[in-house]
Amino acid sequence: MNDTFLKACRGEKTDYTPIWIMRQAGRYLPQYHTVRSKGTFLDLCKNPERAAEVTIQPIDYLGVDAAILFSDILVPLEKMGAPLDFYEKRGPVFANPIRDKAAVDKLVIPDPEIDLVYVMDTIRLLRKELAGRVPLIGFSGAPFTLATYLIEGGSSKNYFETKKMMYTAPELYKALLDKITDCTITYLQAQAAAGAQALQIFDSWAGVLAPDDFAEFALPYVQRIIKAIKPCGVPIIYFANNGATLLDLSKTSGADVLGLDWRVNIGDAIARLGQDVSVQGNLDPIALLLPADKLEKRVQAIVDAGKQARGHVFNLGHGILPETPPEKAKLVVELVHRLSGKA
Amino acid sequence: MNDTFLKACRGEKTDYTPIWIMRQAGRYLPQYHTVRSKGTFLDLCKNPERAAEVTIQPIDYLGVDAAILFSDILVPLEKMGAPLDFYEKRGPVFANPIRDKAAVDKLVIPDPEIDLVYVMDTIRLLRKELAGRVPLIGFSGAPFTLATYLIEGGSSKNYFETKKMMYTAPELYKALLDKITDCTITYLQAQAAAGAQALQIFDSWAGVLAPDDFAEFALPYVQRIIKAIKPCGVPIIYFANNGATLLDLSKTSGADVLGLDWRVNIGDAIARLGQDVSVQGNLDPIALLLPADKLEKRVQAIVDAGKQARGHVFNLGHGILPETPPEKAKLVVELVHRLSGKA
Repeated sequence: MNDTFLKACRGEKTDYTPIWIMRQAGRYLPQYHTVRSKGTFLDLCKNPERAAEVTIQPIDYLGVDAAILFSDILVPLEKMGAPLDFYEKRGPVFANPIRDKAAVDKLVIPDPEIDLVYVMDTIRLLRKELAGRVPLIGFSGAPFTLATYLIEGGSSKNYFETKKMMYTAPELYKALLDKITDCTITYLQAQAAAGAQALQIFDSWAGVLAPDDFAEFALPYVQRIIKAIKPCGVPIIYFANNGATLLDLSKTSGADVLGLDWRVNIGDAIARLGQDVSVQGNLDPIALLLPADKLEKRVQAIVDAGKQARGHVFNLGHGILPETPPEKAKLVVELVHRLSGKA
Repeated sequence: MNDTFLKACRGEKTDYTPIWIMRQAGRYLPQYHTVRSKGTFLDLCKNPERAAEVTIQPIDYLGVDAAILFSDILVPLEKMGAPLDFYEKRGPVFANPIRDKAAVDKLVIPDPEIDLVYVMDTIRLLRKELAGRVPLIGFSGAPFTLATYLIEGGSSKNYFETKKMMYTAPELYKALLDKITDCTITYLQAQAAAGAQALQIFDSWAGVLAPDDFAEFALPYVQRIIKAIKPCGVPIIYFANNGATLLDLSKTSGADVLGLDWRVNIGDAIARLGQDVSVQGNLDPIALLLPADKLEKRVQAIVDAGKQARGHVFNLGHGILPETPPEKAKLVVELVHRLSGKA
């Protein structure tokens, strides 16, 4: 098996820098659209055969060093009792935002092998189909990020309702976060049991919090999750997007790997983080549009800086955008492999 | 005259910490709506009597230590030849995005005293009406931020078209930025000549750039503007929003004051910046919702940390939101004054 990714996560010596790409199974790939057009986005998440198919597409096409389960961070929230819809332009919508005690009390903790069995079946199917080619990453959202969707009723610009609850009803906020945390723990434990070989926790909106608020209202739940899933024995990646000012705090999360978005210089981040943790990142997704010679220079700079880390998994600083030419994604994988000395 | 704000900008000793609030003349104030309802948003920007009236409203109501000209950073772009509309939900729209050489070539440099005379008249009227109560701040957008609106055709999520131009047509991008820079220089020089006693440059979207891209595609234009307006003799504030990873670079902008958004711990930022520059910021705008006792603690922490800076102007870390109760804005002004020892 190609275990370069797992080794880098654990800080073991690797022959070259492994790479995968956030949203590598997604809308920039024509072969994805072929499968996606057979139903809605949620249909695809809930159909193990198709979800496995789109998960493997970028492994075949790009040659990346890890696969990531095709799903969405919001999938378990639906099973907590918050009806979810995805709309083409508007994005995810929870028609009944969670803003009072009655709504929080009504949320349940789903049983992953019953309520989310399609996710677990996808993982089992993928492990069979991947047959050891590359490791499979499972994932969840982080409690703060998940809570923003439930409280706002979908995506948000300023996260006004979420912060309003934090600031004016902290007990209610904490009750909600506790429930999401419990759900996330069983969900990630089940993913590892089903065969996920690494787990990434996406804190996509952590970067809207001041450091003190992050320390009080987001980080403790992540720490609790990581402590609970650590015994599963798989590497854990924590990605606090736009989190340059949260790095010192994120280091206390317990994660094996910290994801870095493109706004921070990776060398500076590694210098601050030291040798207790590996890093993942961090090319600006839109920099894939650069001409090949300039792209090579950027990739070289990140690969070189990454060598100072305990371990480095190359990735973009955020998900690849649908507008990206697929051949540019392929090129960046080739560049990372060649420039880091893959034989 | 209350010149506490100007002294803090210049790093001179002050008796207390001065405060003003970004968007202090705005939608959270009922008295603003009374004036705004007489026409469109752009009508208000272009009517010196009404613009002056809403500029003064928060001086009367809040007791802040500076007034800021009521206008919008996009106003001069319209006079460069890019027709502009504001829609209630969608925000600003440039119906003809600037994406090729022909479009850039067609842009003109407006004469502020002719094409933007309503802005200059507003400043002159305000200086008369303020009669020395508090200093008047003029402002502009920074070239990168202004360019994003022209290139995207309005607001944006990922700034794909802007970065695409930077990465694939850097000469075109630089020609556009040069033109915006020339326009901004004459615009700010005219504001100072008309009576603006400080000038703030808003780089609202600088935080979407990786540090190396900021250094190449945003900062040089800011440096050029500041060099050109420095002889006007008024303090210059540069606010790169979400710019924690850009602070070391922003320090080379030449500004007297650097604005800090709420994502960075102000004490950490001051430690990094040293004693060559004053700082402005940085309470999370939504933290105004906190109960009075908790709000007081946060304000105290920022006021105390600010004492380590060369000079500190208290502000929010971003514009005050329309949903904010006006009495909370009034409270934060009282707190800053009381906690910093105003007699």
